[in-house]
Amino acid sequence: ENEEPSGGIVGQYGFPLTGADIRYYANHTLSYDQARRTPRWVAEHLSNQKLLGNAERKHCKFRPDPNVPVLFTAHNEDYLGSGWSRGHMAPAGDNKFSEQAMAETFYLSNIVPQNYENNAGFWNRLEMYCRDLTKRFEDVWIITGPLVLPEVGADGKKTVSYKVIGKDDVAVPTHLFKLVLAQRKGSPSETLAVGAFVVPNRPIGFDHPLTEFQVSLVDLERMSGLTFFPKVDRTRVPLQNLCNLDSCKLLSSKEFNLYIATRKVGSAPNPHKLDKAMSELKEAGIAPDSYLLNLYAKKKKEFESREVKDNSRGN
Amino acid sequence: ENEEPSGGIVGQYGFPLTGADIRYYANHTLSYDQARRTPRWVAEHLSNQKLLGNAERKHCKFRPDPNVPVLFTAHNEDYLGSGWSRGHMAPAGDNKFSEQAMAETFYLSNIVPQNYENNAGFWNRLEMYCRDLTKRFEDVWIITGPLVLPEVGADGKKTVSYKVIGKDDVAVPTHLFKLVLAQRKGSPSETLAVGAFVVPNRPIGFDHPLTEFQVSLVDLERMSGLTFFPKVDRTRVPLQNLCNLDSCKLLSSKEFNLYIATRKVGSAPNPHKLDKAMSELKEAGIAPDSYLLNLYAKKKKEFESREVKDNSRGN
Ligand SMILES: [Mg+2]
Ligand SMILES: [Mg+2]
Repeated sequence: ENEEPSGGIVGQYGFPLTGADIRYYANHTLSYDQARRTPRWVAEHLSNQKLLGNAERKHCKFRPDPNVPVLFTAHNEDYLGSGWSRGHMAPAGDNKFSEQAMAETFYLSNIVPQNYENNAGFWNRLEMYCRDLTKRFEDVWIITGPLVLPEVGADGKKTVSYKVIGKDDVAVPTHLFKLVLAQRKGSPSETLAVGAFVVPNRPIGFDHPLTEFQVSLVDLERMSGLTFFPKVDRTRVPLQNLCNLDSCKLLSSKEFNLYIATRKVGSAPNPHKLDKAMSELKEAGIAPDSYLLNLYAKKKKEFESREVKDNSRGN
Repeated sequence: ENEEPSGGIVGQYGFPLTGADIRYYANHTLSYDQARRTPRWVAEHLSNQKLLGNAERKHCKFRPDPNVPVLFTAHNEDYLGSGWSRGHMAPAGDNKFSEQAMAETFYLSNIVPQNYENNAGFWNRLEMYCRDLTKRFEDVWIITGPLVLPEVGADGKKTVSYKVIGKDDVAVPTHLFKLVLAQRKGSPSETLAVGAFVVPNRPIGFDHPLTEFQVSLVDLERMSGLTFFPKVDRTRVPLQNLCNLDSCKLLSSKEFNLYIATRKVGSAPNPHKLDKAMSELKEAGIAPDSYLLNLYAKKKKEFESREVKDNSRGN
């Protein structure tokens, strides 16, 4: 294998290119699937440090990856009106430290067609949990990607079935996977914990804990056809179960709604939006915490003083 | 791309291995698909010379490729009783010159689940046509592989749907492709002709000409996600249409049945099988040609003289 006993004539005009080679970006790395027009896998490294900063997604635009041959790239038009959102594999929010790194996560080479509610809800909470891990682990490696998994039909036969969207036939995965490797330095030895999750590409409510979607590393390898973290010697290093070592608990409905309201209040462009965010929270029966109350009061004051200024200018 | 600006920590434990690297065998070359447990593509070079020899498939056995990780290989048990045959991508019959080369085509890394009738019929005739090309072209390169293609449903949406078989979930392709690049030396310039074919993985009768399944090279690239013959400069070399330059005509029903009968007569182990092959041909309303008649007479004599010998031994 990997030598060519037949002497080279079979490769005279070159062997087919799969385009599966590793592609490096500022803060993520991926292998692209030219047939499905999505990534095959996307790798990241998270640390507390990288999550600090002010890069904002409002400055970013989804667009074809200029490094992917045009014949094999997805386009925004494939997604628009398809009923599927553009789901980041390496999340924009993992790149607060760099506008450039964040912008690169909006290349369509890092995107798959994802159910809107899944993207904004369960998957969002999973990404938040991954970022939170950096408070308790020095280094967190994450591999994320799409899967197309078989289902057993009424006849007992297994079938893989998935939609493709747009002119470019972008494959809509049936599931998404996320693989977390978390490392904590310490003596006498360091801790290495792994959590592998396979989540259906559909709405997942707050009644489903993350552990419901946990699978073994080997099962994820079998499903994906990938060998993960090949430099970890699994026979020597005892890999711990992340969900035993850490909580694997995602934000509850209350915590999540509070988080969303706080983000809305923080970015409200006018007093109307400010009050709307607060009343939505109240309608959901959730009491604001002191952080949100302070933020609200501060923003309210800002808008009022701005109004006074505008009025004094005779506007 | 292909540099690592983030400094290496993201790859500290290695990036996921797809196993898509090129694998070299005595007379074929392939890229394996670890998720589907089939090849992605298989490349061969044919010439008149390589088709001479006495290697026989009865000495060969289908078996897992020892070079493929056990987690990702198919096994014979996946195929047996599945309703699908083990279809060669690089055909055994292209390796008459070497027992070793032929045996390697029986590795399951070169095999996909193929409809029995397609395998024995249309696809077999396509392979025979490819071998026949070596009479008219010095060098013939062939890339063969499986495809899973979308279909448009009643709702106008496109869906990819395919069966997977056995414990290893081996993917049953919806279609097979064969790409032929044929080169004829000559002056003032050499001829390079290309034919790309996409054939549904189901029975195809004699009423369907090969040209019905011809597609453009670029369309095959889009469907497969592969870039073919990257060392051919398509802007400089005028690639000719194989089906204009050559016939692209497969054997007719009569020719094919005559060929099958001749093979059966040639390998008949006893007078009963010998006569059965001849009467099957007669029932099909096809007259034997002089080659077959001579072969039949010769074999008949052999059996008779063997019988005389056996009798004289008092057996
Ligand atoms: Mg998202
Ligand atoms: Mg065959």
